[in-house]
Amino acid sequence: MRDAGKERDYPPADGVLTTSFEEIVDDPSIAVVAEVMGGVDPTGDHVLELLRRGKHVVTANKQLVARRGAELFAAASEAGVQLRFEASVCAAIPVIKVLRESLVVTNVHRVLGIVNGTTNFVLTEMEGGKTYDDALAEAQKRGYAEADPSDDVNGADAAAKMAILATVAFNSRVDLSDVDYSGITEIDPLDVAAARELDMVIRLVGAARLVDGHFDVRVQASLVDKQHPLAKVDGAFNAVMLQGDAIREITLEGPGAGGIETASAVIADITSVIGTMRTGFLQNDAAWRELPKLPDGDSRSPFYFRLSVEDRPGALARVAEGLAERDISIARLVQHQNGTGAALHVVTHEARTGALDEALAALGALPEVRKISQPLPVVSDRGVTELGWA
Amino acid sequence: MRDAGKERDYPPADGVLTTSFEEIVDDPSIAVVAEVMGGVDPTGDHVLELLRRGKHVVTANKQLVARRGAELFAAASEAGVQLRFEASVCAAIPVIKVLRESLVVTNVHRVLGIVNGTTNFVLTEMEGGKTYDDALAEAQKRGYAEADPSDDVNGADAAAKMAILATVAFNSRVDLSDVDYSGITEIDPLDVAAARELDMVIRLVGAARLVDGHFDVRVQASLVDKQHPLAKVDGAFNAVMLQGDAIREITLEGPGAGGIETASAVIADITSVIGTMRTGFLQNDAAWRELPKLPDGDSRSPFYFRLSVEDRPGALARVAEGLAERDISIARLVQHQNGTGAALHVVTHEARTGALDEALAALGALPEVRKISQPLPVVSDRGVTELGWA
Repeated sequence: MRDAGKERDYPPADGVLTTSFEEIVDDPSIAVVAEVMGGVDPTGDHVLELLRRGKHVVTANKQLVARRGAELFAAASEAGVQLRFEASVCAAIPVIKVLRESLVVTNVHRVLGIVNGTTNFVLTEMEGGKTYDDALAEAQKRGYAEADPSDDVNGADAAAKMAILATVAFNSRVDLSDVDYSGITEIDPLDVAAARELDMVIRLVGAARLVDGHFDVRVQASLVDKQHPLAKVDGAFNAVMLQGDAIREITLEGPGAGGIETASAVIADITSVIGTMRTGFLQNDAAWRELPKLPDGDSRSPFYFRLSVEDRPGALARVAEGLAERDISIARLVQHQNGTGAALHVVTHEARTGALDEALAALGALPEVRKISQPLPVVSDRGVTELGWA
Repeated sequence: MRDAGKERDYPPADGVLTTSFEEIVDDPSIAVVAEVMGGVDPTGDHVLELLRRGKHVVTANKQLVARRGAELFAAASEAGVQLRFEASVCAAIPVIKVLRESLVVTNVHRVLGIVNGTTNFVLTEMEGGKTYDDALAEAQKRGYAEADPSDDVNGADAAAKMAILATVAFNSRVDLSDVDYSGITEIDPLDVAAARELDMVIRLVGAARLVDGHFDVRVQASLVDKQHPLAKVDGAFNAVMLQGDAIREITLEGPGAGGIETASAVIADITSVIGTMRTGFLQNDAAWRELPKLPDGDSRSPFYFRLSVEDRPGALARVAEGLAERDISIARLVQHQNGTGAALHVVTHEARTGALDEALAALGALPEVRKISQPLPVVSDRGVTELGWA
């Protein structure tokens, strides 16, 4: 620790505190070490050393697991010790144990998560009419956001958690660098208003899928149908939905952060290590196969986007044609007149990202199209079929 | 099994199927037995015998665990084997493992659950305007209700699950006979309409609480605030909310029944037994203390009830007085004129059940009171304080 002399609410017995890593690693009476120092350097090397020296490690460090997982789990397996990491994803919500020990027999093919409380709070506040800046300031005031909230609002925090969840769910290593992510900093009040009109809300959604033997893991601001369980996650809470053959859909919801919540998960992991340490079973992250990453353009989702068009006869028809040519069918369409033009709000059926990008580039070149918004994925259990039109 | 010769989709190898219990119990090569035959007799004696003979048992049988748990777990502990029972509560939703292995360090003091899919479906349909009989017929048509739905609609099924959950959450034996339960057969369309007016829904809620060192476990039709997570559980799904010191509130939601879902939980338990069978840890149900049951009248909750009164000056004042005399304060009150009288809808703040029963008896004796409905508990995270009045 940084300061062994600091005054503490619960002072430990003499000789228990130390600032020396060597004292821990060299002590043969220590069998399990909990790593809660955070950061990747020098923490990663410390954890590696502990594992190699035959100590079980429990960690709450998502960046470490998501970036150096392959190396650390290999070292743990080689030394015959466990590396447990429940607290690294959503604190006390026990999604790692549930995936590894309860859903052993089901093929989990999709994980959907709201795994960052800061952004969920900010987006909830924006729904209520606040600007992004005001909502973020409110989150900071309430302790839901750090003074420097970059890793939360740019999606990096959620991406690390989704990498870990996908690795455990799909039994194949998904590194942080395999996750395509973006954040909520570019969310426009127009997006929020459009979502409301479509009976949806905007959430930062982590989505991991198995597609034809490939994994596809993304974190993006998405439109979520108000009837969908993820739309109902309040404020700074987190939720993870697991979809699999034998379980249909199991959702775990709770506070995804907090000191005591994280400590609860760390101690549960220590208990689990002690309960299984001599069995050789249920160790580490069970990435027993190597799946390839789905090529970027092959990712599929329904999408929302809007176009600003000149109000000319046939404009809507040409837009629809440009989409249909690339096999993109429209699920819902809302048109608003505004002065000399119109705004078209479009929700597509499930479409290939590659095809959508091509279609939007082609639409952007049409003379009647002034502007096209960034497309956002749509999350909806019901499918968006009410107003089929294409 | 009943019929070893039955044609099966996946025919097992020769010699694997048997209708003889002795063949299983006498076979020293069998270490773990999964009991999925159901019923309490003769199943209970079979399970007891298997445990005594040193075989680990995994069961999906809630009535067995809730009625004969004390005896079975004692036998398992004595023989040094495990009795696991994840599938006995809400099928594949891993609430037993989460309580026993993930929330080891938190003092879970309240468990709220929608643990019966049949009644949740029926109540959801009644919200849509169906009568109780039509909603039940629809549930039967869709396979959500048995031909004889008695144990679902009278609350017995939910009570067995709540007994098991309370035992594991509070680490003290709660037998089925310790659970006060009622069902949904007496729910009146007037209750459904009143709930809607109060921005609530009616659900069959299992509620287990630790109160001053006593346990209090009930299953009752309840009014649930629409903003509460339990109000958002759709159709035949189940959800269990765990509240504890270190975790605040964790909710698990999913399909609470189904053949494949149950099989998923049974196999997860078998895997957990194999992964821990020689450690001596994490066995059985950890009822390591004996808490007394809370005396009936001491159970506390906010309540809803309605009175039909003569439309005389002072009627409302006398009702309010009758409640205030017993320390029951009114949170919300709605009055409707109807012909020669009025209907008073009352939501109280948290009140002792004993005090409420006395108050309602006294109100029933007032000359202006024609009729009082059965009081229903109210479940609301926000507390019902908006319209404080008393």
